[in-house]
Amino acid sequence: MADSNRQPARATLERWRARLHSELHGSVIPFWMRHSLDQEFGGYFNCLDLDGRRFDTKKHVWLQGRQVWMLSKLFNEDRSRAELLEAAKLGARFLREHARRPDDQVYFCLARDGQPLTLQRKMFAACFYVMAFAEYARASGDTSYRTLALSEFDAILRWIEDPTPLGKPKLAGNQPTSELAVPMILLNLVAELRGAPGSPTFHDRPDYDAIERRCVAAIRRHHRPERGLVFETIAADGSLLDSPEGRLINPGHVIECGWFLLDFARRTKDSGLRDEALAMIRGALDFGWDREFGGILYFLDSEGFSPQQLEWPMKLWWPHCEAIVALLMAWRDTGDASWFARFEQVADWTFAHFPDAQHGEWFGYLDRRGDVSQRFKGGPYKGCFHVPRALWLCERELAAALAP
Amino acid sequence: MADSNRQPARATLERWRARLHSELHGSVIPFWMRHSLDQEFGGYFNCLDLDGRRFDTKKHVWLQGRQVWMLSKLFNEDRSRAELLEAAKLGARFLREHARRPDDQVYFCLARDGQPLTLQRKMFAACFYVMAFAEYARASGDTSYRTLALSEFDAILRWIEDPTPLGKPKLAGNQPTSELAVPMILLNLVAELRGAPGSPTFHDRPDYDAIERRCVAAIRRHHRPERGLVFETIAADGSLLDSPEGRLINPGHVIECGWFLLDFARRTKDSGLRDEALAMIRGALDFGWDREFGGILYFLDSEGFSPQQLEWPMKLWWPHCEAIVALLMAWRDTGDASWFARFEQVADWTFAHFPDAQHGEWFGYLDRRGDVSQRFKGGPYKGCFHVPRALWLCERELAAALAP
Repeated sequence: MADSNRQPARATLERWRARLHSELHGSVIPFWMRHSLDQEFGGYFNCLDLDGRRFDTKKHVWLQGRQVWMLSKLFNEDRSRAELLEAAKLGARFLREHARRPDDQVYFCLARDGQPLTLQRKMFAACFYVMAFAEYARASGDTSYRTLALSEFDAILRWIEDPTPLGKPKLAGNQPTSELAVPMILLNLVAELRGAPGSPTFHDRPDYDAIERRCVAAIRRHHRPERGLVFETIAADGSLLDSPEGRLINPGHVIECGWFLLDFARRTKDSGLRDEALAMIRGALDFGWDREFGGILYFLDSEGFSPQQLEWPMKLWWPHCEAIVALLMAWRDTGDASWFARFEQVADWTFAHFPDAQHGEWFGYLDRRGDVSQRFKGGPYKGCFHVPRALWLCERELAAALAP
Repeated sequence: MADSNRQPARATLERWRARLHSELHGSVIPFWMRHSLDQEFGGYFNCLDLDGRRFDTKKHVWLQGRQVWMLSKLFNEDRSRAELLEAAKLGARFLREHARRPDDQVYFCLARDGQPLTLQRKMFAACFYVMAFAEYARASGDTSYRTLALSEFDAILRWIEDPTPLGKPKLAGNQPTSELAVPMILLNLVAELRGAPGSPTFHDRPDYDAIERRCVAAIRRHHRPERGLVFETIAADGSLLDSPEGRLINPGHVIECGWFLLDFARRTKDSGLRDEALAMIRGALDFGWDREFGGILYFLDSEGFSPQQLEWPMKLWWPHCEAIVALLMAWRDTGDASWFARFEQVADWTFAHFPDAQHGEWFGYLDRRGDVSQRFKGGPYKGCFHVPRALWLCERELAAALAP
C-alpha cells in the first residue's frame, strides 16, 4: 500500500457518499422491497434470480433474520419510512411464529408456509434471530421481541459452554479448537443488543462487559502479528494446527472481524486494540488481494497449499462489502490517508464488478477473473444484508467525516 | 454427435490401449504405492499434494475403502503382483479395526491413528466399506471380510427402509424424495458382492435379483426421456420438484449411472434397458458438455437458473473418467462407431487436461477454462479410485474389442 499523505478532497468524499446513498436507496433496498415480501405467508422470499424472479420458495432463517435487522435499522434511522417497518414486521412475525423450537434451537431453513425443513447442528441461525429481534424491538417499540432476543442469547451462551444440545457427536479423535466465528459473532451480538450508547433504546446488562472482554481476548488469540495472519481455527490452547482447517485463511472474515474490533475500540477508547485491528485488516488485505485479477480471494492456505474449498479463488460480494467498511473506519480512526487510498482501490473494483445496473442489487458470486459465475441476487447465503449494511455504514462514516 | 459409420482402425484401438495401460501402471498406481501407504499406523494417506507430499494426515473412509477395492481388483487380475495385495491388506486391516461402530455406522473420517473424527448422517461411507471388503475377501482369500461386507450391506438395506438410526431429524416440512445416488450405489454394490459370473469367487444370495430389479426401476423413475435428462432428486411419487434440488442435473453422475445400467443390461441381456442407458448417457453428455471451453460441467439447473453449488462450472476429473468408460461400453454394446468418435472427443480433452506428466497421477479440479484450480492429487473426495478404475475398465473394453 502506497503511503500517501494527501487527504481526499471534500468533493471526493461527497461523490462517494452520493454514490453509496443512491446505490442503497435507489437500487438495493428497492430490489428487496419489490421482490422479496411474501404478503401471503409472511417472511421473505430470499432465493431471487437476477431480475427478482423466485427460483425457490424456501426461507433461509439467516437471511430472514438479517433482513428484519436491516429494515429495522434503516427505519430507526429515518422513522418517516413506514413501509420499512411494515416490511420488517412481515419477517419478524414469521420468525417469531416458525423459527424457534421449544428447546431454543432455531431452524436453518423453513418452507414458504413456515414448516421446518432443516436444522443445523450449529448456533448461527440463533444468532441472526437475536440480531433481528434486538433491532426490531427498537423499530416497533414492542419489547416482547427484546425479551425473545435475550432468552435466545442466553441459550447461545449456554451452547458455547456446552454444545451437546446442538447434537453434534463428540468423537474420540476430536481435539478442542477455537473457531474465530464464535467470539466474533458474539461480540457483534452484544453490540446489537446494547444499541447506540446514549439513545433511549440503549440496553445494558451486567454481563455484557465481561462477555465482550472474553470475546476480544479470544479473537486476539487467533492473530499472529508476526505473520500478519488471523487463523480461522486454532487449538483450544492457542497453538496452530497443521491441517487444512488449521491453515485456513478467510480474508473477508478477518476484515469483518477487524471492523467489529475497531467499533469496539472506538467505544472503549482502546488504542492498543485499534492498532491490532488495523494490523489484522492490513494483513488480510495484503494476503487476500489477488494481484493478478484484482479483488479479494475467498479462501487461502497459510502455507500455500491448495485450499480444499473448491470455491477458493472466487470473488464473493461480502468480503468486498466488509473491506470497504473496514477501510473507511480505519481511515477515520487514524487520519492516515493511505487507508482512504486503499478504500478507493477496493471500492473501485467492487463497484466495477458487483452492482447490476439493469435489475438492481448486486451479483454475489464472480469467478476469479471477475465474471459473474452465479447470476442470482439472493440465495441460501445472500440476502438483504451485507450489501445494504456496508453501503449504510460507509455512508455514515463519510457523513461523519464531512460533518463540520 | 456426427453419425459416423467408420469403425476405428485396429491401430487406433491399440494406441489407446497402450496409452491407458501406461497411464494406469506407469503413473497412477505408482503414485499411490509410493506416497499413500502408512506403514506405521496402517491405512493410506489420502491428502497428497501434487508431488505426493502430505498436506493432511486425516484418513477419509470413502478413499480408504475405495483404495482397498482398487488394489484388490488389480491384484485379482494379476496375482503375481504381491505388493498390491500387501498394500490392500494395509487398508483393509485399518478399516476393520477403526471404521465401523458397534451399531454398524461407519465413520466418514479417521485420524492417522484410527481415532474417529467425523460421522456423517449418511450411508455412503458404509457403502465403500462393503465394496472394499467384498473385493479384498477375494484377493486375500480371507472370507471373514466377506462376512463383514455382508453384515454391513444388511445394515445399509435397513437404513434405506428406515434412516432414523443415521440421526438426521425428520422435520414437519420434509417431503419424501428419491435420491438417484441411493439405487445407483446399491446396484453397484450388489454387482461387487456378486463378483464375476462363472468365477470361483462368484457369490450369490437369494435377495440379490430382487434388489437389483428394484434399483433399476428406481433409477428409471429419475429419467425423463422426452427431455433427455435424469434428475438427481425427485419426489417419492416420481414427480419432479420445482426447487434447486429438484432441478439439479449432475451429468457425471448420470453418465456413471448409465454405465452401471449398461453393465447390468449386459449381464441380463436386456436390450430395452441397454437402450435406455444409452439415452441417459447421450442426454447427459449433450446437456453437460461445455461448448465454449470443452469438458463436462459439474452441475446444471434443468431450467437454466444458476446452480447454487459455487463449483458448478468446474471440470472435475471423475465425470470425465466415468464418461470414457461409458462411451467405450456404449460403442462395444452397439457397434455404432459414433460412440467411439464421442469417446475420442472426451478422452482427448481428458488426457490433454488432467494427467500430470511430471509427478504422476491426475489433477482433479480444473476451472471452467481447464486450468488447474486445486493442485492436490488426493483430498477428502479424490483418491485411488476414479482414475485407475476408469483406466482399468477402458483397457478391458479395448482388450475385448481387440480379441480375435
